[in-house]
Amino acid sequence: MSDFVRINDVGPRDGLQNQAQILTPDQRIALIHGLVDAGVPSIEVGSFVSPKAVPAMAGAAEIVTSLNQAGINKRAYLQSLVPNQKGYELARDAGAEAVLLVVCASETMNQKNVRMGINDGLGQAREIIQQAKTDGIDVLACIAVAWECPFEGKTNPNVVLEMAAKLTEFGAHELVIADTIGAAMPNAVNGLMKQLITQHPNQAIACHFHDTRAMGLANVYAALEAGVRRFDASVGGLGGCPFAPGATGNIATEDVVMMLQQMGMHTGIDLTKLMAVGQLAGEMTGTPTGGRAHQWRSLQLQKARL
Amino acid sequence: MSDFVRINDVGPRDGLQNQAQILTPDQRIALIHGLVDAGVPSIEVGSFVSPKAVPAMAGAAEIVTSLNQAGINKRAYLQSLVPNQKGYELARDAGAEAVLLVVCASETMNQKNVRMGINDGLGQAREIIQQAKTDGIDVLACIAVAWECPFEGKTNPNVVLEMAAKLTEFGAHELVIADTIGAAMPNAVNGLMKQLITQHPNQAIACHFHDTRAMGLANVYAALEAGVRRFDASVGGLGGCPFAPGATGNIATEDVVMMLQQMGMHTGIDLTKLMAVGQLAGEMTGTPTGGRAHQWRSLQLQKARL
Repeated sequence: MSDFVRINDVGPRDGLQNQAQILTPDQRIALIHGLVDAGVPSIEVGSFVSPKAVPAMAGAAEIVTSLNQAGINKRAYLQSLVPNQKGYELARDAGAEAVLLVVCASETMNQKNVRMGINDGLGQAREIIQQAKTDGIDVLACIAVAWECPFEGKTNPNVVLEMAAKLTEFGAHELVIADTIGAAMPNAVNGLMKQLITQHPNQAIACHFHDTRAMGLANVYAALEAGVRRFDASVGGLGGCPFAPGATGNIATEDVVMMLQQMGMHTGIDLTKLMAVGQLAGEMTGTPTGGRAHQWRSLQLQKARL
Repeated sequence: MSDFVRINDVGPRDGLQNQAQILTPDQRIALIHGLVDAGVPSIEVGSFVSPKAVPAMAGAAEIVTSLNQAGINKRAYLQSLVPNQKGYELARDAGAEAVLLVVCASETMNQKNVRMGINDGLGQAREIIQQAKTDGIDVLACIAVAWECPFEGKTNPNVVLEMAAKLTEFGAHELVIADTIGAAMPNAVNGLMKQLITQHPNQAIACHFHDTRAMGLANVYAALEAGVRRFDASVGGLGGCPFAPGATGNIATEDVVMMLQQMGMHTGIDLTKLMAVGQLAGEMTGTPTGGRAHQWRSLQLQKARL
């Protein structure tokens, strides 16, 4: 199996949408340029949600347009989250070439998220995917709360497998299996991903983990062992300061890249440049960068000075 | 394979020896009582090193005597680190029933640690093990820098396998395979532990990981997959604040227990009581508790209040 792992940095979207400090579109564009310069091959650049509901994501169209004008879409695979048909149309009209849809693997969570049940969520996904085919736009489908839901508890793996089969049949280009609340355990990750990998080409499957309970990298390893070669991660661990109660704790891209590199696997990412972007993100948001790689690097520098 | 995992809490020794704040023997005794009350079945209680060299470990004899008088040695497996023959004799005379010896899997590290090479270190271990047999004392042998040495780089797995064979032949009761500097990657952990488990009964093998690079729990999972069922961990992540440069970052017992419990495995430890001990350790040392479990718990409590 290939030892190349494709990292998708979700910092500019998932990482920033809940930060106390709201970044301007220009700041977000600067972060995305930094990520691409560091060799990150795939980036979630924004979300076409209502700026009233999520003020931190205002200016998504401006960001997509600017990135396309600068040719960033030729250097990395850029996706925008779209919550519904309207969001999809806004993304398309702004020039998005790939969009991300989310369907939750629990009724309650789907209701809370988009005010519809799983079946209606899948129906909406089918319509958007069909429209996107006509428009020549890729659709990534995220199956959220794939291991555990904060309202319904453990997720039935069969629900995830069935949703994955349907979304693939509708024509989704990639499935992103997400541990939305950081509740997955490595054995459960390994089990579900092994099943998915037998039913889908592994290039069409990605995992999205949070480090809420310190299991982020254990879950990455468990998924790697199952054959997964695509992971979401967030530069600087953006997505909540991992040191604060209430943090959502995205896994830090730096930590994932460090682990993969040292395991002899490849990402095409320059870790030193990436860490500089993590530093910049920390300065912009006013939160400490969460990646443990930063602390380890500080330790190394400290030792080198002794 | 059994789903019972034996946790050895090394907080009172490995966790405290480098803290800025030095705890009194009474404080350390209180922590050990707390751990035993939480159901921790095995504890590293102190180190019979020179108090001049390691002031934080002064009073090891007093601790062992006090614990034995209180019957703690009947409720948990207590070990003391001994650096050499003299330390061994002090531990024995204080009433220690199990001692821990360390031999490094690199020449340079062994020289720095105890001013002798690997062969002399093994020779000293053999003598102490023989003496301990006569005295009726268990000897646990730690193979340090088993994956990487800060001076020599990657450790040759064959060196570890040979050392393990010799220490077992000498009569060591248990081998503790240690990633002393937190540099091991989960694939290397899985590889080495699989080899060791084919050559030794898994009840005679333990792993000791640090979380310096956020790979602590990933390594625990990788070792579990290889069949390891014994792990060192440090309450509250004592052993350096994981958020500060220079931290040594022991894996937090709370995090390991949380992961194992949620994976359906058993430790016999009451996580709520353990977290109270982690809190106490944080207050005593003046450093935040490193266990992510604490942050997750805070988040849960916060949500429950909403």
